Amino acid sequence: MLSKSQISFIKSLHQKKYRKEHGLFIVEGIKSVTEFIHSDYLVTDIYCTENVMPKLANLSQKIKLHQISVSDLERITTLTTAQNILALVRLPANKDIETLDLNETFSLALDGIQDPGNLGTIIRTADWFGIPNIICSHDTVEAYNPKVVQATMGSLSRIQVIYCDLPSVLESSRVPVFGALLDGTPITETAFGGEGIIVLGNEGKGISEAVIGQITNRVTIPGLGKAESLNVAVCASLFCYELRRNILK
Amino acid sequence: MLSKSQISFIKSLHQKKYRKEHGLFIVEGIKSVTEFIHSDYLVTDIYCTENVMPKLANLSQKIKLHQISVSDLERITTLTTAQNILALVRLPANKDIETLDLNETFSLALDGIQDPGNLGTIIRTADWFGIPNIICSHDTVEAYNPKVVQATMGSLSRIQVIYCDLPSVLESSRVPVFGALLDGTPITETAFGGEGIIVLGNEGKGISEAVIGQITNRVTIPGLGKAESLNVAVCASLFCYELRRNILK
Repeated sequence: MLSKSQISFIKSLHQKKYRKEHGLFIVEGIKSVTEFIHSDYLVTDIYCTENVMPKLANLSQKIKLHQISVSDLERITTLTTAQNILALVRLPANKDIETLDLNETFSLALDGIQDPGNLGTIIRTADWFGIPNIICSHDTVEAYNPKVVQATMGSLSRIQVIYCDLPSVLESSRVPVFGALLDGTPITETAFGGEGIIVLGNEGKGISEAVIGQITNRVTIPGLGKAESLNVAVCASLFCYELRRNILK
Repeated sequence: MLSKSQISFIKSLHQKKYRKEHGLFIVEGIKSVTEFIHSDYLVTDIYCTENVMPKLANLSQKIKLHQISVSDLERITTLTTAQNILALVRLPANKDIETLDLNETFSLALDGIQDPGNLGTIIRTADWFGIPNIICSHDTVEAYNPKVVQATMGSLSRIQVIYCDLPSVLESSRVPVFGALLDGTPITETAFGGEGIIVLGNEGKGISEAVIGQITNRVTIPGLGKAESLNVAVCASLFCYELRRNILK
């Protein structure tokens, strides 16, 4: 059984402020937790119900395993319906953007994405299409927000997500900077070559002025109907797909 | 100022049971409300703050216009942050599937989609790519759920969404039934021709057994990374894009 102070400690991690203070974030669900265990992330504690215990037999001894009741899990979950396992994972230090090699590969750049579900879906889709890096403006929603973590379905454990001063990073980029905009060249007629950064803007306001100035190639996803815009995660997905389309089998 | 009973009436429409009972649903935001006004839907009441009134100058006299305070809007909104306009719209009768011509066009079929955000994004994307029909199994989330309406960004006013007994509708289909599955022909090698139905399954369980039996062409979106699956709205979007790719300009 969890003590009141344990419950209140874990619940504090639902909030960004306390995730930062304690250097921990929450991952839920056996699939996601297993993927974090087998990643470069450090899982410190696992809280799970009795029925999940057999699946955790060969766990590293460095991970503290707590068998708890369903009702205790319901007290600490970030989800509407609790999964039967919740893990605390060490928050990585935000890597220096200098450590990331943006050459000879494709990266996504997110300029002020606000919706956690959108960010999570973008991370999951980037993982599916083998896009290894996501660079985010400082005002993009935090990748360790529980709703983001949940929407990535484990993909957060494999994708590099780095927060940075986006305009200056793009300014010093040696690869083409493609911007998803409404007035560009159709994506179907764009030659992406072998490297580049794809910039996607905020859900309502689009790409900010400071970032627009760094875009070298404006690209549009043409439409046929009367909708005014696409959801940003859909837009990101269509770019990822188009970048990889010729090598997909 | 709204009376207690008006507030409680509008708030009851947040729930499916009362939407059905009263035959009304809620649309919020000036863009979406305007699109519903100019659609085949019947807008019955508009509740808005003073600053929005000038935008509604040429409104049909059949629509009852209520100028209300910000705090009253906050009491009736379905959103976390209220927009400055909320409309009540007549719930259409679920059209008979027989009235829908599925030949010589493309339609999406949704088999048990549960997440309102996913359904809304699929409707919005279908509108963008000019896919006119979405047929849903009875256990798919209701299209007039406020979270769905919000995520469609007005596109719900233009797209036919019909609920039906999906297996029997697919069984009597005269066009190819493509299923989004993990073990099919790569989408990049699939010849869709000029007509068909694209079936997308539930977020966790995929396409149900009864529907699987009606699929004539299994299609897969190949991946390059380690993610196990794609979000269903992303998957739907990639199909819509691929169907239209050759005519997009």
